[in-house]
Amino acid sequence: MFRYPNGKTYNPGAVPAKKREAKESYSNRGMTLEEDLNETNQFYLNRAIAVIHKKPTPVQIVNVDFPKRSAAVIREAYFKQSSTTDYNGVYKGKYIDFEAKETQSDTSFPLKNFHEHQISHMKMVIDHGGISFVILSAFGSVYLMEAAVLFEFWERKESGGRKSISKKEIEASSHLIPLGYQPRIDYIKVLEKLYFH
Amino acid sequence: MFRYPNGKTYNPGAVPAKKREAKESYSNRGMTLEEDLNETNQFYLNRAIAVIHKKPTPVQIVNVDFPKRSAAVIREAYFKQSSTTDYNGVYKGKYIDFEAKETQSDTSFPLKNFHEHQISHMKMVIDHGGISFVILSAFGSVYLMEAAVLFEFWERKESGGRKSISKKEIEASSHLIPLGYQPRIDYIKVLEKLYFH
Repeated sequence: MFRYPNGKTYNPGAVPAKKREAKESYSNRGMTLEEDLNETNQFYLNRAIAVIHKKPTPVQIVNVDFPKRSAAVIREAYFKQSSTTDYNGVYKGKYIDFEAKETQSDTSFPLKNFHEHQISHMKMVIDHGGISFVILSAFGSVYLMEAAVLFEFWERKESGGRKSISKKEIEASSHLIPLGYQPRIDYIKVLEKLYFH
Repeated sequence: MFRYPNGKTYNPGAVPAKKREAKESYSNRGMTLEEDLNETNQFYLNRAIAVIHKKPTPVQIVNVDFPKRSAAVIREAYFKQSSTTDYNGVYKGKYIDFEAKETQSDTSFPLKNFHEHQISHMKMVIDHGGISFVILSAFGSVYLMEAAVLFEFWERKESGGRKSISKKEIEASSHLIPLGYQPRIDYIKVLEKLYFH
């Protein structure tokens, strides 16, 4: 179990009951992991290490009010499914592209966290020479799984196999990301070892 | 003046009065140029030429309804200013990052189309080895201006000089993008000549 300098343990599942409820009705958007990654990316940006941003949540806007002398107000809009992954940017000239997901399960990571079009997006990124992966928050740790590895588990599901990745499989096929205070989720350190040494 | 195969001329300024009104009250979001670029990017994607997407419009969500048995409805939200450019992706392994803007002016391109944080974002992209530029729709043509060139005009404005780029300056410092039916705005052709030959 990782401890922050202030003594708090890092536990992505540990959100107050109320927040967790809101999160779950929000289709498991994963606020804690998202906040930690945003802070991490801000750290990379401030230190001129990498330029990586989360894309805005895609929204289908239906109705907008234009009140006099104040800002336009969106009065009706719907969440849309993204056709890409959530995070992208540049590190040492290379295109970086990833998705981040978390599970509360203690035993496995459900593949329903990913969508068919995200998988094909990641495949295209790799075909075009980019670096693609997923960040998985599970079992009290945060892992980086390369896209090529995810594709294998995805294919297994597509051909009728199990619909999740077991804890053992994740531990064997992924890379533990060092957690800390600044940056919180140092995934660039893993990328360095995998692609830039 | 470019003509589509159906005989129509390409004129980004030629939007019906009603649409133009809506567009202007929408802070010059540039629908026509955006649609043409989306089709262009879709063409690149379908032909496995490049993976480049427009980022969703950033929206600050304030209030969401969760009706029983139907999709969540956003009831109050506001447009946010983006901290990056609108388009990014990967071409031949390189990180591509750009902004697209249009003007109805016949004589110059106003620099107020860009924001300070977009300029600094583009600077960081270049520092990290990415390719950054702007696509300018103006004077009936579409131009690609490399970020480094835009920075010079921006600096001139910052140091008290003119607040726009004259038509002559754009013609001298930018690259005409070939327009066509498929793809509509073939900016990759310009990138090829500039960076990949």
